[in-house]
Formats: sequence, C-alpha cells, structure tokens
Amino acid sequence: MSKGITKRSENYSQWYNELVVKAGLAENSAVRGSMVIKPYGYAIWEKMQRALDDMFKETGHENAYFPLFIPKSFFSKEASHVDGFAKECAVVTHYRLKNSEDGKSIDVDPDAKLEEELVVRPTSETIIWNSYKNWIHSHRDLPILINQWANVVRWEMRTRLFLRTAEFLWQEGHTAHSTKEEALEETKLIADVYAKFAEEFMAVPVIKGYKSESERFAGALETISIEAMMQDGKALQAGTSHFLGQNFAKAFDVKFSDKEGNLSYVWATSWGVSTRLIGALIMAHSDDKGLVLPPKVAPYQVVIVPIYKNDEQLKQMDAKAAEIMDLLRKNNISVRYDNRDSYRPGYKFAEYELKGVPIRIAIGPRDLEQGNVEIVRRDTLEKKIYSQNNLQETIKQLLDEIQDNIFDKALKFRDSNIYKADTYDEFKDIIENKRGWALAHWDGTAETEEKIKEETKATIRNIPLDAPEEAGKCILTGKPSNKRVLFAKAY
Amino acid sequence: MSKGITKRSENYSQWYNELVVKAGLAENSAVRGSMVIKPYGYAIWEKMQRALDDMFKETGHENAYFPLFIPKSFFSKEASHVDGFAKECAVVTHYRLKNSEDGKSIDVDPDAKLEEELVVRPTSETIIWNSYKNWIHSHRDLPILINQWANVVRWEMRTRLFLRTAEFLWQEGHTAHSTKEEALEETKLIADVYAKFAEEFMAVPVIKGYKSESERFAGALETISIEAMMQDGKALQAGTSHFLGQNFAKAFDVKFSDKEGNLSYVWATSWGVSTRLIGALIMAHSDDKGLVLPPKVAPYQVVIVPIYKNDEQLKQMDAKAAEIMDLLRKNNISVRYDNRDSYRPGYKFAEYELKGVPIRIAIGPRDLEQGNVEIVRRDTLEKKIYSQNNLQETIKQLLDEIQDNIFDKALKFRDSNIYKADTYDEFKDIIENKRGWALAHWDGTAETEEKIKEETKATIRNIPLDAPEEAGKCILTGKPSNKRVLFAKAY
Repeated sequence: MSKGITKRSENYSQWYNELVVKAGLAENSAVRGSMVIKPYGYAIWEKMQRALDDMFKETGHENAYFPLFIPKSFFSKEASHVDGFAKECAVVTHYRLKNSEDGKSIDVDPDAKLEEELVVRPTSETIIWNSYKNWIHSHRDLPILINQWANVVRWEMRTRLFLRTAEFLWQEGHTAHSTKEEALEETKLIADVYAKFAEEFMAVPVIKGYKSESERFAGALETISIEAMMQDGKALQAGTSHFLGQNFAKAFDVKFSDKEGNLSYVWATSWGVSTRLIGALIMAHSDDKGLVLPPKVAPYQVVIVPIYKNDEQLKQMDAKAAEIMDLLRKNNISVRYDNRDSYRPGYKFAEYELKGVPIRIAIGPRDLEQGNVEIVRRDTLEKKIYSQNNLQETIKQLLDEIQDNIFDKALKFRDSNIYKADTYDEFKDIIENKRGWALAHWDGTAETEEKIKEETKATIRNIPLDAPEEAGKCILTGKPSNKRVLFAKAY
Repeated sequence: MSKGITKRSENYSQWYNELVVKAGLAENSAVRGSMVIKPYGYAIWEKMQRALDDMFKETGHENAYFPLFIPKSFFSKEASHVDGFAKECAVVTHYRLKNSEDGKSIDVDPDAKLEEELVVRPTSETIIWNSYKNWIHSHRDLPILINQWANVVRWEMRTRLFLRTAEFLWQEGHTAHSTKEEALEETKLIADVYAKFAEEFMAVPVIKGYKSESERFAGALETISIEAMMQDGKALQAGTSHFLGQNFAKAFDVKFSDKEGNLSYVWATSWGVSTRLIGALIMAHSDDKGLVLPPKVAPYQVVIVPIYKNDEQLKQMDAKAAEIMDLLRKNNISVRYDNRDSYRPGYKFAEYELKGVPIRIAIGPRDLEQGNVEIVRRDTLEKKIYSQNNLQETIKQLLDEIQDNIFDKALKFRDSNIYKADTYDEFKDIIENKRGWALAHWDGTAETEEKIKEETKATIRNIPLDAPEEAGKCILTGKPSNKRVLFAKAY
C-alpha cells in the first residue's frame, strides 16, 4: 500500500485524484482522456449496475444493444441535437491498416477510406430512433421501454478520472410512447428511480428538479436532473431524464396509427447515468484516510484480518475465518479474508481503510480463546469487541447502521450548506465564501442566468420539483419570480 | 407475428437468417456489418453473461475495463500479433465535426486530426499489457486474473447476424503469471469453464482440443478451442483459450522479481467467447417452427396463455395466472403471462413456438373447473394435462427434462455424424456427402493442412485433448502420425 494521501482541507482536488489512484479504483491510460477502471473500481460499478438494472426491470424496461458507430449524416437530422452533440466526437474514417514500406510500423491504408465517416456514439438517440422507425407502426407496438449499457465517447479537453473522461460507461434509456402524458410520466418515473438509487444505495441525498432551458440536453423539451452536494460544496449532476417531445420522431419520421387509424408522431424520452456516479460516491463520503463506501455498493462489506505469531496460530485463525465467512455468506454478506503472510496487520488495516471496506474484523489468539472478535467500522473508525455468538446478526445490524449513518451525515452536511439568498450580495457570499448552494429568485431569462454565471461561476443546477410557490424578486434584476431555483458551482 | 420461416431442409442458411429476425433476436442496422441486438436476443446474452461471470468469479477472476481505443503504434510491438490483427480495423483519425459551410450538413473538421491514429480495439492484449507493465513489479503482484466484458470491432467483409459482425460483444480474459506451468493450467482451466458452460447451460456438446499452428490466435503459442456441431454438420468454434507464453511481456517489457530478486518476463493467457454463442445456440437446437431454447438460457422459461370467451372468464384467468406466477417465481422459475386481448390464442401459441419458450401453459374455463392446466413442451411439442396441485414441482421437473433432452439430442446428432476416416476418399465422402466431421491422421505439416483445405474446404478444427495415442498414416501424404485430429467444414 502506498503512503498517505493529501488532506481534503489542503487541496480537495488533489485529495480526490490521489485517492482514486491509490485506492486502486482507476488510472489514466496511454490514450488521452481514456481511463482504465481497475478491478476494485469496476466492482463498485457492477454493484451499481445490478441495483439500477433491477430497478429498470421492475419498472418494465428491457435491455438491448445498438451499434457503437453512427453514420455522420444521422447527426444532421435533429437540428438542436447536432449543435449540442455532433462536435467533439471521435470519427472513424478508415477501415484498414497496412505495414509501412520499411516493414517497421503500420500505416492507415489510404485505399480503405469510408464513403461516409462513422461517429463513435456520444449518445444513441439518432441510431436508436432510426431503428424504432422500423419497429413502430401501430399503437400496439407502444410503449417501447428499452435501456442499453454501453460505452460512449465525447472528446473532452480537460478530463478527470470518473468525473469527465473521453470514453465512459453508462446506461442510456430510450423510450417511445403514444401520448405526451405517458412520456412525461416516464421522465418523472426515471428521475424517481435515479433519486431512489442515489439515496438508498449510494447514500447520497439528491435534489430533483427541472433544468433551465440553457442547461437542457440537446434535443430535449424538458430535462429533470438529480443534483448532489460534494464535500467541497460543489454540485454534481448525478443523472438526467429527458422528455424529448416528438423531436426525434419527426427527425426520423416515426409515426404510429392509433385505434382509429390516425397517424401521429411518437413521443420520446431518454435518460442516463454513468461511471461519473463513482466520482460522486467518492467525493460525497470519503475522508483523509481513504474511501468510505456505503455497504450497499461496497465490493465487499467485511474483511477479516488474522493476528498471529506462528503457523499454528495462523491455522487456528484460518479455521475460524472459514467458519465466519461461511456464516456471513449464507446471510448474503460479502466478505474477504486476508491472511497474506507478506504484510503485517497494521499495513492491512491501513489498506482497508484506504479502500473503504465498511467493516473490519480482526481476530487474535485471545479473541479465539474468549470467543470474541474485534470490529472496526470504517465510517466512524469506532473499535469494539463483540461476541462470536450470533455474529451474522451483529454484522447485519452494523451494516444497516453504517449505510444509514453515511446517508445522514451527507444529508446534514448538505442541508447545513443550502441557504436562501434574497439579495445578490447574500448570494455572492453564499457561493464565494460559504461555498454553499443558494436558493434564490430568478427572472427566468437566459441573459440573467448567463450574467450570474459570468460573475460568480454559479449556475442554475435545477428548479426543484418540490419548490413551493412563493412571490419574490430576481436577485439580479429585481423582476418578479414565483419560485426559488437552486444555484451552485458545479463539477 | 410473422408468417412461417423457410425449412432447414430447403435452405439452412436462409432458415437461420429468417429465424434470427422473426424471433426478434437481432437485425441489421444502418451501419454496415453492425447489428442491433433486440431485447429478446439481448436477454439470452444476459443469461449467458451471468452464468459465465459467476464461473469466472468462482475461479478467482475479477472484472475491469480498459480503453476502447488503442494507439496505432501498439500493434507493431508484438510481431505476429500485428499480422493477425492490425489489418481490418476501424481507425479513428479525427476528433471533431463542424457544420458545413451551407449549414445543411456536418463535415469532419480537418483541423482536428489526431497526431497518432487510434484503432478501435479488435482485441485488447496490447492496451492491457501496456497497463500491466505498471502493475507488475514483484511476484507478490502475481497472478493477475482479469476479465472484461466489452465491445470489439473487426472490419469483416461478409457478415451474418451473431456469427460474424463488424462489432460484437464479448468477454476477454487476460491473465499474468509467474510461471509457465501456471499459465498453461489457466489456459486449460478456462477451456474447462467454457466447455462446462456450453454443455450445462447451452446444452451444446463440445470437443476441446488444441488448434493447429496455422489456426492459432495471432501471438499465441497454444490455443485450445471448443468446437460444436451445428445441424448442417458444420463446426462452430464456440470459444478459445490462449497460452501466450512471454510474447506480450516481452513486447511491453513486463518483468517481475521473484523471491530471490531475479527478474523474469511474465507468462500470459487470454481467452474469450462472444455473442457468436447465440448463433451457435440457435443453429444447434432450433427447428422449422422456430427457436428451441434450453431453459437455463431462455429469457423466460414459462409462458401462460389464457383461453376465454368474455371479460368475466378473463378475470378468473388473470387471478389464477397471478397465483401460478407467484408460485413459480418463488421457485426461481421465470414466467410471463400473455393476456393481450388483441391476439388470439392460436397466434400466441405460434409466437411462443417461434420464440422457443420452453414451457407453454394454457388455461381455459374447463381447466379452471377441474383444477388442471394444459402444458406443451417446446422441445418435443408434446401436449399434456397436469393438475394445478404441486405445479411448481411439475414445472421444475419438466424444465430439467427439457434441458437434458435438448443436450442429449444434440449429443446423439453429433456423435452419429463423427466418423473415422482412414483414406482420403473416405475423408472426402464424410466431408462432402455425409456432411459430418472426420477424425483422421495428419502428418502435422501446414502444407498438408492447406492442401486438404483447398481441396475439400475442411479445416482442422482441433486436436482433441483426449485423443488417444494411435499409430497411423496421414490421409493425404501417408506419412506417420500418432493421433487423429478433427476435420470439418466450419462457420
């Protein structure tokens, strides 16, 4: 294991970068902007995938898979989409390499140029709606409720592990409906699924709300986002659900006949979350000693470390550990046993703190004699002796407590850092000095939004779904407003 | 549902193509050679993934994720690999698009040309070993047992849904070991995992064996394949496990220090199976009425169709079906209920035959009165009346019987189509007229292999691991040989 990491208070950004690498979650690769997700990081993603996938299926969605490549011309079909998406993309222009003349390297074969260039998908609305055109004829073909797990590429100039990478993994849902109402309901349903997942699994409280027009997805009529607060007070958009109206149906000419035989354009939604969630998870909970993982998304929830002086003692520990592991696994608790002889217990303790394993069990010779184990919770670092009797119940209860405690801590932190701002001075103080989120009145114009962003770097994160009606005045222009919106600096 | 499909006896190839599309498994997309995997096809892939992933994890492997793009220069580093792999690839040369001057379309921005082109991975040995270089220093860092689930692209000229597509989904394992023996063991272990999966889940019997040198993976010292027989007598390579020696360690300079501090190159394996397995599954078992799916990889194992004349009867069926579904699900049996009012039972029966659902339950008013259900098995199309009492046990037993029966049928078919050939005439008769596989002596040279291929289109599928030592003469040259190898025409 590597030496300590930079403290959050010293340099939050460096703390994050070091933690991701040292905890073995991910690292940069030889390809600019593309990361390698290492086994420990990927195991978190698998936990997230499983939980989300179950929730999608419970709400009637199915998975499918659409091509990685999209013909360039598809991007010109939906006018607002092209502006938002078709620009910073990886473009495939050739389909063959050949040996160079000196035989020492390989070159792109100029004879193998594609007639039409292919774009590596930055998102899949266009290729999917081009397929839906053939799938949808009648109202009986609707709704279509499809999700795909895929990699996408957006050529980002400044990248950061998990938070912003050229290639990332995500899920993208693409649904087709016969009515506007149904599509709007779907948009909200998925926002609810995302919020539930963030809060119940990731232990990250979120605020659901509508994006302002200028922050919407390219091609959407309405975007609902979930926004989470990181420990430096910045917001992180953790998922978005879009109501696309009939834009893509019109662009790809997708109509259905209703029961009376009338033809109408189909209504659409799309929605996604990505490996960015791992960044959110880290920045919401972790501390100066390393990761703090909520049990529900931890690759393993319990680690057992034996304390021993000789081979005979080790054998006893091995036997006891096998017994405990068997017991815990039968209770659906994931557990690892680390009896590597090449590292000392202290080294291992630090390693599992760095890796954020929720519960660490140590067993020494005296514990064995007395029928006890020593347990340390990662979230509080509290150490306690427990009886080996009924250990599965002890652990289950502790895991629940840890999951709840991590959420409660994040919720308290967030709520104590959201302020109402009634003047522009108050607003600037919140954003700049208090490093918090500001609930403030806004006159609803893109100009005001832009000016505030220029002057304070704060953007409208969203207009909370549950924002109460309240007469007020825009903090910048003084014009009337009927509800507060959420401003923050954001990742 | 669409009309019938071409019979296998009329045109096997057309039967396959129609079946894939009409059963809703996959279809061609707007991108040459790239398919859309539709929900029903993807659900089969998910079942396969889950089973394989569990087996990989049980044998100590972890998942990770490496970049989609590989710098072009990486392919020149391993000499034999470049010849085998770097040719028919999709190449990314630019990273930006821009609006055309007339504003009506989009163009590739000539100013956004990459300094070094990026190849869309056809397989990931190079980018992965470039990472392993940084991960491996000491014997304590070994073994590394990593798998990734990913999409890959090989620019195939002739494509067929699932069997050969430009983009396909697969898993690729890449392991690093301190000794040759351990790497060889890993190669065999994975071949065993693949064979077990093919036989126990896909109900497809396979023959494990070594590839001849000319059929090996580019960069491998030894390749073990599993070969399956399709209903037209052709072989399909369903998975490969490669012993890579120290080739990639040398190409990327990956050394480790042993306990004594001596530096050595690391030993490697790689192995993969792909969505091609779905093609194998279809061609091994399905019939002229449609798919025949083994219960262990069927998206749902049971479908319930109500027979009713009026709304009141439908309500009764709905209630009974809910009860049955609840019972079956509690017993881990996946089930769908189809009470769509817009289709007649006969139509639904044909649809589920086409889709290969292992068990179809029909319930009519009389069944309800008498406490019975009508059950049709997809594999035999046998129809029987069963009591609703203890239905979960009836279904469980039937599913086991169906799984076994499908395997036994495929095994009998295969074994009755493998022949020993002792002369070249016998050999040609087996390959050309009997459309079978031939076990024959071969002199071990690439020339003979090539000549036989030219003259008969049969290739050496593999040299079976369990081939008995047996003195014989090469069917073509008469030179001595000590074991029979497996020849067949192949997909």
